[in-house]
Order: sequence, then structure tokens, then C-alpha cells
Amino acid sequence: MANELLRPGERLDDLLIGGLKIIQQAGRFRFSLDAVLLAHFATVKRGAAAVDLGAGTGVLGLLLAARGAARVTGVEISPEMADMARRSIAVNGLQERLAVVCADVRGIPGGAVMEGRRWELVVANPPYRPLGGGGVNPREELALARHELAGGVDDFVAAAAFLLKAKGRLAMVHLPERLVDIVGAMRRAGVEPKRLRLVHPSPGKAAKLLLVEGVRGARPGLTAEPPLHVYGEDGRYCREILAYYQAGE
Amino acid sequence: MANELLRPGERLDDLLIGGLKIIQQAGRFRFSLDAVLLAHFATVKRGAAAVDLGAGTGVLGLLLAARGAARVTGVEISPEMADMARRSIAVNGLQERLAVVCADVRGIPGGAVMEGRRWELVVANPPYRPLGGGGVNPREELALARHELAGGVDDFVAAAAFLLKAKGRLAMVHLPERLVDIVGAMRRAGVEPKRLRLVHPSPGKAAKLLLVEGVRGARPGLTAEPPLHVYGEDGRYCREILAYYQAGE
Repeated sequence: MANELLRPGERLDDLLIGGLKIIQQAGRFRFSLDAVLLAHFATVKRGAAAVDLGAGTGVLGLLLAARGAARVTGVEISPEMADMARRSIAVNGLQERLAVVCADVRGIPGGAVMEGRRWELVVANPPYRPLGGGGVNPREELALARHELAGGVDDFVAAAAFLLKAKGRLAMVHLPERLVDIVGAMRRAGVEPKRLRLVHPSPGKAAKLLLVEGVRGARPGLTAEPPLHVYGEDGRYCREILAYYQAGE
Repeated sequence: MANELLRPGERLDDLLIGGLKIIQQAGRFRFSLDAVLLAHFATVKRGAAAVDLGAGTGVLGLLLAARGAARVTGVEISPEMADMARRSIAVNGLQERLAVVCADVRGIPGGAVMEGRRWELVVANPPYRPLGGGGVNPREELALARHELAGGVDDFVAAAAFLLKAKGRLAMVHLPERLVDIVGAMRRAGVEPKRLRLVHPSPGKAAKLLLVEGVRGARPGLTAEPPLHVYGEDGRYCREILAYYQAGE
């Protein structure tokens, strides 16, 4: 059955978490550790209804479902990626809990894409690179995933602010170099940054990623959580990351 | 000679760095590790002219001189603290390099306190607690040192923005819970945050302090440096902090 859902050039990869599978295409955008880190950083209440902005392959929806979210709706601008994400949902038999809307994140605040003020959680693994910040990849899906062609930090945050219930949470993964943009955009949109975690490749190295969670309508006051070192001194994944995988077995 | 400079209730403490001494008063504000961390975090170019906003006991001026700053001017609102800081300068025989101006940081942007656009480095270990954020200490020096009675983050950053040369640096130590306020104030004032370091008491604990450095007129783009864990798993100061002290011997 899974193979019927594959198109030429695609392959079925094992997420290694919760027995989940994901369809990906070699040479196009594939999910990375960033999504796994974000899914485990986000505060996921059992039974929560969540939105994944810029869903790409749909990996975050699968991971949030494994963590207890009741429903996750992905928003993805590329029709090809949205179709692939929907087939991954079907491969895993999760059609009743996961869905993908093919739409531009920038249309969300107007209300044209989905209903506002009703979601408990929004996650986003948005494109990291501003336009003009390096060569744009000629393959359009890769370019959309990496560059702010279809919305930047402000757009993703504005979409989340529109979607979230009061006290609902936005969890994002991004580059540390964008920290000032990100926390500023969140505060301006009324989604106050409450948790920050820096991800370092190994001890003694500068952070390569930041994880941040804001709460709509919360009072100011951020907790800077213990750093996450992806690899230990021995060059192996740290215990915490290994536990993400073991928990899903 | 040193004893002649002591007033009743004061004592002469050894900074344990560079043979420096400091006058402090039991029960009043005494310098803490925060100042030592900030002095070592700041980019101190040899021969630089620096300002210490909210100088308190004057400890930062002494430490920056030990790190190679040619001149440091402290700005301190309390006449008693300013006098004590001046006597610490005299105890160390550093009158030609260090000075203290008794003034309100909030007067700096108007130009009444000191000349603007000429300093290479501004450091600040400002009061951490907003007004109304906990009981204000009845002893005025302690209250001024801990609560934003005489200027908050915005005021300190505005003063630094006035004082700094183009590409001059502002280095601050503060609470992680204020991170969004701090980086926002710096960007608005044109002192772009470029380096962030979180200070955790020990591995696995949330950060208790943040160190941040901004550059006046720089382009956006922050580096999140490796975390500093004050105590190791063995409960002793980490090697990096011990090295601060050994370097000064």
C-alpha cells in the first residue's frame, strides 16, 4: 500500500520515532533534526489542536501526533510538497488527525485560509535565510524551504498570532543570528517569548539553532533553558536526543 | 595609606585579580561575580576609553583597567557610592586611568554629563529589577543598585548609544527574563546585539544571567556563544572562571 503512494524519484523513509514513515525526495528538501528538536521542545498538550506553518514534507505534523496532539493542520505553499505531505499522512493512516492545506502563510491573518483564535499550538520551522542572504536555489521547493520567498519571520509570527487562542503557544526553530528579529516580532504581535533554548553542536561551540516558545497574551519574562548539545564530547548523540527516539519505539 | 581611605563600617577587600583592592561596606551593595563575568565577556581593546554606567563600588573600572582599558569613567548616581569608588581608585593608585562622575545615567543623552560619540566601550551592570517587581530595599544604595529607580534598560541603552563612537561596543550583564526588553532596546537605539552568552549556575540548570554585547551601527546578526556554567558537576568553579583569577596574578 505504501508503495502505491510513492511517485517517481520519491522514497519512503523511516522517521525512527513511533514507527512513523515519511515520503521524501532525494535532492529536494528533506526533513532534518531541526524538526525533531522543535517537536520535542514545543509544549504539546494531550489532545491539542495544532497548526504547522510552512509544513514542507509534513514531518512536524507526524511528530506532534506522536507526542499527543489530537489534530495538526499543516499549511504549505507548494502544491507538490502539500501533496507529498498528504501521502505521508495516508502512509501512516493518520488521515483523521492530520491534514494539509495548500496556502500561503501570508494569507492567514486575513482569515482566508483557516479560522483564527481557536488553536492551542502553532509550530513553525520557517525558511532561515532572508532574501538576498545567499544564492537562492534554482529548484523552487528548496528555495521556498530555505529563503524567505513566501514570508519571513514577521509573516509567520503574524499568522500564529491570528490563529492562537488566548494563552496558546507558538514554538519555532530558527537561527540564533535572527534572535533579535524573532523575539521582537513575537512581542509586537502579542505572542510573548517565554522559553528559549539554544542548540549547540557540541560543548564549547556557538549555537547553531534556537528554539523559542511564546504565549499569546502572556506577561513578559523569559526562561533561558539549559543548552542542548547535540553531540557529546564522544561525538555521539547526547542522551536527550537518543531519548526522543527511544520514547517513540 | 589604604586604611586612611576607609570610613567607619567599610573594609578593604581583595579582588583576587591583578592585585586589586576594593572598598566595600558590609550590609550595603557589594560587587558580585556578575561584574567579573561582564569584565571578561566585554571586548576590551588595549588602550580603549570606556564608560561604566551605574558604577556602584567601581569594581568594573578596576577590572577593565586590569584587562587593558586605558581609561574608564564610572557614572554613579549615589554621592556616597561615587566617593567610595573614588577611594578604591586611590587605594590602587589608578587615579590617572580611572575616574568617577556622580551623575544620573538618564542625563547622559542630553550631553550634560559627558561628551558623546567618543567612547569605544560602555559597560553596564544595571539594576535588574523593574520598579514594582518586588520589595524595594529601604537602604537607598541597595535600592538604587537593585531596582530601576534611577533608570531602566532603555535609559542605560540610550546613554550608551549617545556615548559610543561608530562601531563602539556596549556590554551588559542582566537577567535572562529581561532578554526581549534588552535586545529590543539595543536595536531601537542603533546598538545592534552581536554577541549573547547565557550563564547557567551548573549543567542542566536554566540560565541565571545573560551577557550581551552590541555594536553601534552594526548590521543585524547575533552569535550565541557557548554557555558558561559557573560550577561544574563537581561543585567547583569551572576552569574558565578560575582562569579569570589566575590571569590576574
